[in-house]
Amino acid sequence: MGKTSYHHGNLRAALLAGAGDLLEEKGPAQLSLREAARRAGVSQTAPYRHFDSREALLAALAAKAYHDLATALNDACKSAAGAPATLHALGAAYVDFAVENPQKFRLMFGPDITMMEEWEDTRAASADVQNIIETTVGDYLEARRIRLKTPLVPVASAWSLIHGLAMLMIEQRLGEMSDEDRSALVASVTGFFVTGG
Amino acid sequence: MGKTSYHHGNLRAALLAGAGDLLEEKGPAQLSLREAARRAGVSQTAPYRHFDSREALLAALAAKAYHDLATALNDACKSAAGAPATLHALGAAYVDFAVENPQKFRLMFGPDITMMEEWEDTRAASADVQNIIETTVGDYLEARRIRLKTPLVPVASAWSLIHGLAMLMIEQRLGEMSDEDRSALVASVTGFFVTGG
Repeated sequence: MGKTSYHHGNLRAALLAGAGDLLEEKGPAQLSLREAARRAGVSQTAPYRHFDSREALLAALAAKAYHDLATALNDACKSAAGAPATLHALGAAYVDFAVENPQKFRLMFGPDITMMEEWEDTRAASADVQNIIETTVGDYLEARRIRLKTPLVPVASAWSLIHGLAMLMIEQRLGEMSDEDRSALVASVTGFFVTGG
Repeated sequence: MGKTSYHHGNLRAALLAGAGDLLEEKGPAQLSLREAARRAGVSQTAPYRHFDSREALLAALAAKAYHDLATALNDACKSAAGAPATLHALGAAYVDFAVENPQKFRLMFGPDITMMEEWEDTRAASADVQNIIETTVGDYLEARRIRLKTPLVPVASAWSLIHGLAMLMIEQRLGEMSDEDRSALVASVTGFFVTGG
């Protein structure tokens, strides 16, 4: 395979793009710096200019995935009118992202990203996602004029609900279903939170 | 290391016990038939008398883990009085099991167990867990005199809520917390379902 030359920033982007494709095809366990270099069409030593280790590559992939999820959640929230609709939209966008990017989602929320302290970008991007969920749940509670001493419980509840639904769906523990049935179930389940049953 | 002789059933049990220990120590990715044999102190070919492949071993481990979870859920439900308390107890036992056995939990609900059609015992044990959740949620809805055309929504909601909470906790996405704080959060989050906020 012919080797390609890249400028500094482009090489990093090309490696991440190649690694992202590999991740979605084969899962985190199969991902190596060597395979990412091969996919990007660069020499096997090229990745080491940007990533010290396989874990650094995984952390960078996770940071990008968190950023993409944050963008998807923000876009969904912006296009909804009113607090309950926004909460619904958030839940649907979260589950859709997981279903469309199962390997990225497993990486982001699985055991492959350990030592989050080391990866400042990953932590920041992960915190962005959490902040969007907190803000959306907070706005919803305010709209319903619910005041709580600690917002941890409703935030953890809403996040757990959509996260569990996403995980059970991507691991196919709720049975096979069409896209239409899936959308309806996501709407009903987030509705369970919004209306309290 | 000295090799041990086992009767047929004992060898299988010894291999599963050794593999279960390895799983909890190192995770599914590191688990092999060879390592399981070493841990059980038997020859490297011994596992093949019981398991055709690494995947068959993982499926058997998952079946045992589902069985253990079903037992824990049943025990918790039995010791609770009344439908809301039973639903609370179910949620707490589910999350406790995940926190105490994170690797088993990841195996049970992760991508390592594919092709569930092949593994009849695993599917049956998994269905037992789902049935306990369905029955407990059904009893709770009946006690509240809620009748629904389809129980899928409340069952999926309750399961998603406790499953998401378990996953976010074992992957430490809700921050560090003491056992006491964790118990309080689990009670509050399951309470969110039980009281509807």
